[in-house]
Amino acid sequence: MKQNDLISSWSVIVGNDAVLAGDAAAPYCTDWRGRYSGNALAVVFPSKAQQVSEVMKLCAANQVFIVPQGGNTSLCGGSVPLPQGKQIVLNLSRMNRIRAFDPINYSMTAEAGCKLADVREAAEKNNSFFPLGLTVTQKYCEIGGNLSTNAGGINVLRYGNARDLVLGLEVVLPDGRIWNGLRSLRKDNSGYDLKHLFIGAEGTLGIITAAVLKLYPRPQAEATACVAMRDPAAAVALLSHLRATCGDKISAFEIISRSCLDLVFKHIPDTREPFAAKYDWIVITQLADVLPVPLDATLRDALKSFGKGVIGFEITPDKDHSERWWKLRKNISEAQKLEGISIKHDLSVPVSRVAEFIVCADAALHNVFPGIRIVAFGHMGDGNIHYNISMLDTKQNQAFMAQQEAAVNKLVYAVVRDLNGSISAEHGLGQLKRDTIRDYKDPLELELMRNIKQILDPHGLMNPGKVL
Amino acid sequence: MKQNDLISSWSVIVGNDAVLAGDAAAPYCTDWRGRYSGNALAVVFPSKAQQVSEVMKLCAANQVFIVPQGGNTSLCGGSVPLPQGKQIVLNLSRMNRIRAFDPINYSMTAEAGCKLADVREAAEKNNSFFPLGLTVTQKYCEIGGNLSTNAGGINVLRYGNARDLVLGLEVVLPDGRIWNGLRSLRKDNSGYDLKHLFIGAEGTLGIITAAVLKLYPRPQAEATACVAMRDPAAAVALLSHLRATCGDKISAFEIISRSCLDLVFKHIPDTREPFAAKYDWIVITQLADVLPVPLDATLRDALKSFGKGVIGFEITPDKDHSERWWKLRKNISEAQKLEGISIKHDLSVPVSRVAEFIVCADAALHNVFPGIRIVAFGHMGDGNIHYNISMLDTKQNQAFMAQQEAAVNKLVYAVVRDLNGSISAEHGLGQLKRDTIRDYKDPLELELMRNIKQILDPHGLMNPGKVL
Repeated sequence: MKQNDLISSWSVIVGNDAVLAGDAAAPYCTDWRGRYSGNALAVVFPSKAQQVSEVMKLCAANQVFIVPQGGNTSLCGGSVPLPQGKQIVLNLSRMNRIRAFDPINYSMTAEAGCKLADVREAAEKNNSFFPLGLTVTQKYCEIGGNLSTNAGGINVLRYGNARDLVLGLEVVLPDGRIWNGLRSLRKDNSGYDLKHLFIGAEGTLGIITAAVLKLYPRPQAEATACVAMRDPAAAVALLSHLRATCGDKISAFEIISRSCLDLVFKHIPDTREPFAAKYDWIVITQLADVLPVPLDATLRDALKSFGKGVIGFEITPDKDHSERWWKLRKNISEAQKLEGISIKHDLSVPVSRVAEFIVCADAALHNVFPGIRIVAFGHMGDGNIHYNISMLDTKQNQAFMAQQEAAVNKLVYAVVRDLNGSISAEHGLGQLKRDTIRDYKDPLELELMRNIKQILDPHGLMNPGKVL
Repeated sequence: MKQNDLISSWSVIVGNDAVLAGDAAAPYCTDWRGRYSGNALAVVFPSKAQQVSEVMKLCAANQVFIVPQGGNTSLCGGSVPLPQGKQIVLNLSRMNRIRAFDPINYSMTAEAGCKLADVREAAEKNNSFFPLGLTVTQKYCEIGGNLSTNAGGINVLRYGNARDLVLGLEVVLPDGRIWNGLRSLRKDNSGYDLKHLFIGAEGTLGIITAAVLKLYPRPQAEATACVAMRDPAAAVALLSHLRATCGDKISAFEIISRSCLDLVFKHIPDTREPFAAKYDWIVITQLADVLPVPLDATLRDALKSFGKGVIGFEITPDKDHSERWWKLRKNISEAQKLEGISIKHDLSVPVSRVAEFIVCADAALHNVFPGIRIVAFGHMGDGNIHYNISMLDTKQNQAFMAQQEAAVNKLVYAVVRDLNGSISAEHGLGQLKRDTIRDYKDPLELELMRNIKQILDPHGLMNPGKVL
């Protein structure tokens, strides 16, 4: 079929107003960070799984590649087309209904195009809680994309990653067949668990069109502390101490380096030092409980009994008050953007080795690249550090980025490898790390992945150029 | 190779004392319930993954089928050989070391042959908690088997199933290659999640030889209630009420019918009615907290504020006291065994539909088979009901079992299907439900499962006659 005929056929399936081509398609062909741009025959917006199925069948018959897209907030170029190739963007945003809500089963069936913030709000309205929390993007990203990338965020140490919050899936396979795995069971051992294959596969095995999500009772009490720390090693020890004394009441444990704070103060209005003095590292940690019990005393006792690594701290049970501190954490990415480009990493190591990672990677980089700025922050409670590198001087930085990205990555990834870590903790591989992963993953594991891709998507139509 | 040569070769790999054949092999060829017996060329006991690998390579070269076995406590004939076929039992019991313990990362690396009770004890000794709890079998079953069957148990509503407690796996593939996926990361989005394929596959895709397990802070406070309930519908409502008022502090919620209690009183010494009067249904529920806070008042307030469905209750913060009630729950299976055989089911439906399931299945069965006894109990908090049927009269029962098992299953499974449930909640398929599942699972899902089996085990050597 010719391009125009294909577009007409897709329009018949989804409606004329639900197919964009040419200039109108362009915004959907560039990624969130503006690093990847591609081209698509069309952007197609189905509103039902059945439409997804028909579009996919037409693509399969005409060897058109399919790029699934939700809110297009991937940080790895995972949801935009390649510059070349006969491909469409299949955008799920119109599939945005909450299909069912079961308050007794603590579950909700949401379509892929529901925005994460809307899912969270729907849960809250029904006196329950959907714990996936992404500080920056949750107003834009969609649950289908969250599941396809197995999103993480700030509450993982308490509630797990996106995959841990799923009971069932509806998936349209590359050949257009619909797998209805929308079960809402807490226990089901009746064969291989297929849903975990599609979760985190970044749209390379099929398209998640709906999911049964696990809900939780709503926390009713909260206490947040901002803690000035001597160094990351003290922060690791503090986390361990808090787990021993406060257990799984810890719902967040984030670390922020001085370089992050300075960037935030420089670029983001109404932000200021959390303490009278300046400290090299701060930690924001939160306790939560489903009962309306006072947690600030618990947190205070735990911090006081910790010892030397804590230089100072402040505690509040009040959301507005703690928001001052969270504002610092939530604006790190934005502040970095305003400062200029940087080499970004999303790494994980065992929680016990986070400090070792920071010390070793810092030393290796400063040794080879004197004068660099390292911006380290993130989900220490999950061993997940965002670790970004740039030159202070803008001009120097441009050249540094262009010439040294590969060398910087090599140094950082070597430390990750030594510590049995992962070069992609929560953002996925997308286009960004598709080639690199081949050097860091067990060849046997890559072989198994390719075999699985081969049986589910034998013609290689799904999200070309991503992951594998 | 001839049988004797094979046995010699296996002996060279694992040692002479680690290969059993003939009569010595027989105990490993009959299942826990005594329902399935088979034959094996030998039972081989490797002590290292490398030995597993070499044994598997030899099997692959000689087209010998492999039946992986842990504690051999499968309730579905999942871990014993078939009556015919050239097969070995590969028993993992000698691989029983805890390889590593990381208290800060809250993780432990255990070999497949570690007994579940030993894993729990090792965690406890290190001031942490491994939450998988199987009331009857944990002294006998092994963690490799627990993961291969994605075991459930009584704490699932708080901590998830076995698969939720795993960070990484070591697996020997059917061709003998070892996949080292022993990562201990809380976040790792660097490709398809292969571990979830092997977990719950009942040894049909490869052999789990070791796992990195997630640990939790140890609960320090507990309160248990025994509650007399009007009916299962009231119990469902109570669970919902408790989740709203006590949230995820609920660590167990078990329902027990009168018929279970009567059997326990009849067969198990030192057991008695929990209340002065006899009631049709009782619930045992438990709250736990990581802080040493009194929970009995919380539980009392929650039960008092519930209303009519609760006929009476008693609460204790004391472990010994609550053990009296748990003894009733834990001995149901044993009491049934002593009473005689029965048709057993391990079913799940959404938590919100448990009462509907019991009412509908009871009605359908009593209608067709007057005079039957229905023994219903289980993990209501997970929508998982054990639902067993027999005739009161022993002689009648023998005939009933022989002639009516298929008819009984059909009636029960029809109700499960209507409620979007699963005919195997936590025990797996094994041999028991291998054929039946074909009638109850989406053909597309079965096709995907077969395709996955085909790429991982192309010669069909792993655990023949189970699952698929």
